Amino acid sequence: MSAPLLNFSRDEYAQRVAKTRAAMAAAGVDVIIVSDPSNMAWLTGYDGWSFYVHQCVVVGPDGDPIWFGRGQDANGARRTAYLGESDIIGYADHYVQSTERHPMDYLSAKLEERGWGAKRIGVEMDNYWFSAAAYASLQKHLPNAKFSDVTALVNWQRAVKSSQELDYMRKAARLVERMHQTIFDKCEVGYRKCDLVADIYEAGLRFDDGLGFGGDYPAIVPLLPSGADASAPHLTWDDKPMKSGEGTFFEIAGVYKRYHCPLSRTVFLGKPTQTFIDAEKAVLEGMDAGLEAAKAGNLCEDIANAFFAVLNKYGITKDNRTGYPIGLSYPPDWGERTMSLRPGDKTVLKENMTFHFMTGLWMDDWGFEITESIVIGANGPECLANVPRRLHVKD
Amino acid sequence: MSAPLLNFSRDEYAQRVAKTRAAMAAAGVDVIIVSDPSNMAWLTGYDGWSFYVHQCVVVGPDGDPIWFGRGQDANGARRTAYLGESDIIGYADHYVQSTERHPMDYLSAKLEERGWGAKRIGVEMDNYWFSAAAYASLQKHLPNAKFSDVTALVNWQRAVKSSQELDYMRKAARLVERMHQTIFDKCEVGYRKCDLVADIYEAGLRFDDGLGFGGDYPAIVPLLPSGADASAPHLTWDDKPMKSGEGTFFEIAGVYKRYHCPLSRTVFLGKPTQTFIDAEKAVLEGMDAGLEAAKAGNLCEDIANAFFAVLNKYGITKDNRTGYPIGLSYPPDWGERTMSLRPGDKTVLKENMTFHFMTGLWMDDWGFEITESIVIGANGPECLANVPRRLHVKD
Repeated sequence: MSAPLLNFSRDEYAQRVAKTRAAMAAAGVDVIIVSDPSNMAWLTGYDGWSFYVHQCVVVGPDGDPIWFGRGQDANGARRTAYLGESDIIGYADHYVQSTERHPMDYLSAKLEERGWGAKRIGVEMDNYWFSAAAYASLQKHLPNAKFSDVTALVNWQRAVKSSQELDYMRKAARLVERMHQTIFDKCEVGYRKCDLVADIYEAGLRFDDGLGFGGDYPAIVPLLPSGADASAPHLTWDDKPMKSGEGTFFEIAGVYKRYHCPLSRTVFLGKPTQTFIDAEKAVLEGMDAGLEAAKAGNLCEDIANAFFAVLNKYGITKDNRTGYPIGLSYPPDWGERTMSLRPGDKTVLKENMTFHFMTGLWMDDWGFEITESIVIGANGPECLANVPRRLHVKD
Repeated sequence: MSAPLLNFSRDEYAQRVAKTRAAMAAAGVDVIIVSDPSNMAWLTGYDGWSFYVHQCVVVGPDGDPIWFGRGQDANGARRTAYLGESDIIGYADHYVQSTERHPMDYLSAKLEERGWGAKRIGVEMDNYWFSAAAYASLQKHLPNAKFSDVTALVNWQRAVKSSQELDYMRKAARLVERMHQTIFDKCEVGYRKCDLVADIYEAGLRFDDGLGFGGDYPAIVPLLPSGADASAPHLTWDDKPMKSGEGTFFEIAGVYKRYHCPLSRTVFLGKPTQTFIDAEKAVLEGMDAGLEAAKAGNLCEDIANAFFAVLNKYGITKDNRTGYPIGLSYPPDWGERTMSLRPGDKTVLKENMTFHFMTGLWMDDWGFEITESIVIGANGPECLANVPRRLHVKD
């Protein structure tokens, strides 16, 4: 089988593993079981829609990481990860969705074989892909191991992006620009939501001869609720026509090699209500204030406080966070789940951290989103995409 | 706020809750915490891409189910579920991705308030959306509760489909037919994978005036690996052109109101190799044998054994299961995770159970998929979609 085409140099992967091992040492663990597919990909290159069955990457005290997953997916590891044959472990298919045995039973045996059965083992306790049953299996089959919680340990290592990662995110930004242009071109009264989503996928995926690349799937499907449905941030779409007199926000992401550039804009069909005009004014002024604070040395909460102060001036209360880090992601979330842009988060911003500055408002019977994805710089942020930052009105 | 447009009658939802309570009684639990978004939707109508934060539906000893989720998503529950205001509980945003507090801490308090703190509580131990940390929080904050595992308890209630559910699945079948027609029309040497995926989304989503509806998002993105990549069942796509002399399988689903009709076909560009011609012969003959066995009263394993017997006759060994139940689904899986079509599964087939008869072969350096989605009938199955069942060759 030919060597996989990796998205990063072997050297970059080696640096990632080394950073992770340093964090493991600081956390007092010898071995970590990494269930988050984004972390698995970041450490090894592994890429596949196989996270619906139990799988993980194990980073031990030395050597390359180990891929563990369903036997039939081991070929996927061979074709996408840099790992050697001895570091790819597939489990037999009778472990899949069985009530009698659990894939983690088998992993325990494999860890014992490597002499790691009595080690200090970190697990991602609050990850989607590490179920309560997976933990129960490990506890039962590795009675001498000392388990501790390393949720987000690897995610934190991903916070500052390399130049290759930023290159992928800038490519994703080109795609999200194209997607929003399409939305603005196509969106009109009577046009159906499902048709607009087809257009959005077209713009997000199709190869562009000028750009020289095409797109990948987003970790979240397009969100485009209208009118009162926009009071709920996570409704998807139906096959009904768009109506006059309603605002619709479009929360979407361009994606290149699993790197995301999320960006939201709001379109109003017809004459915008005063509510939307006021929201636009407050959000844009607040974003300027927040972007001003988005520089290395400041804190996560500085961005949020600057933004919220302007909203408060306009009498708008937003009680949810106003952003999160972004980068390499798999469903169900394009956030990295480490820092949050919210009051109280004292994380120091560093150059080349990347965030979705998520300034969305979800009120009682309307919603409004104008957002930016940003790279933290020494003196201020780079906005990854260039999409006119305003309420888009089609009358 | 106006009443939500439900996809099923209130009566159908009431029957679902009643069936679930009967299963709870049989399992010896008073309360269940349902984390699976498919189960949540099936019980309450709730629909939204909010499963990336902790949420659940609680079914207690009496009354309507309770929706529990992030505060900002409560509006989504109000707009999609039939629940009254007192049965929608939102948690504050500082519980989101916090290292200090867990949303399940808050749920525990709410269950105590209802007097359920010392009840026998069932949890979905092996569900993606019920993390090890969620369980640890419940155990800590409800020390008097008796927890037990009800993984798949609700999923099992979903196995036999209602006529309304079958109607949605037949609509999904129309969409998957259109998707495969598009693939066959567009697929050719030099055509890029990402472009073909854009075409697939177009065919799966756009409103069809003849049909009178448009599509929804699939729980799994299109899988379309070529050549040796097809040895791995779960690779997605890149932006490279398709090559001559390679087989590509297309594993996709049409989706209508979250109900899925998966269907796979394989396209060979150029003159098919003997391997593909042999695989086609064996799989088609095996499928005929399996479909023959797909009738009420037979067992799940009967379908698998019939299929595998033919494969063995042709010297092909498939060591993974050959199908699973389908219906209402959210990412990451369109399977229902209850029965499996594999030797040893003695579940009795009933009328209006629905399966993806997943006859895919993933060999050392090639892969081949021709599959059908079926409804179990008294005397045999209904194949939901009508897509020519053969290896598609474009020379």
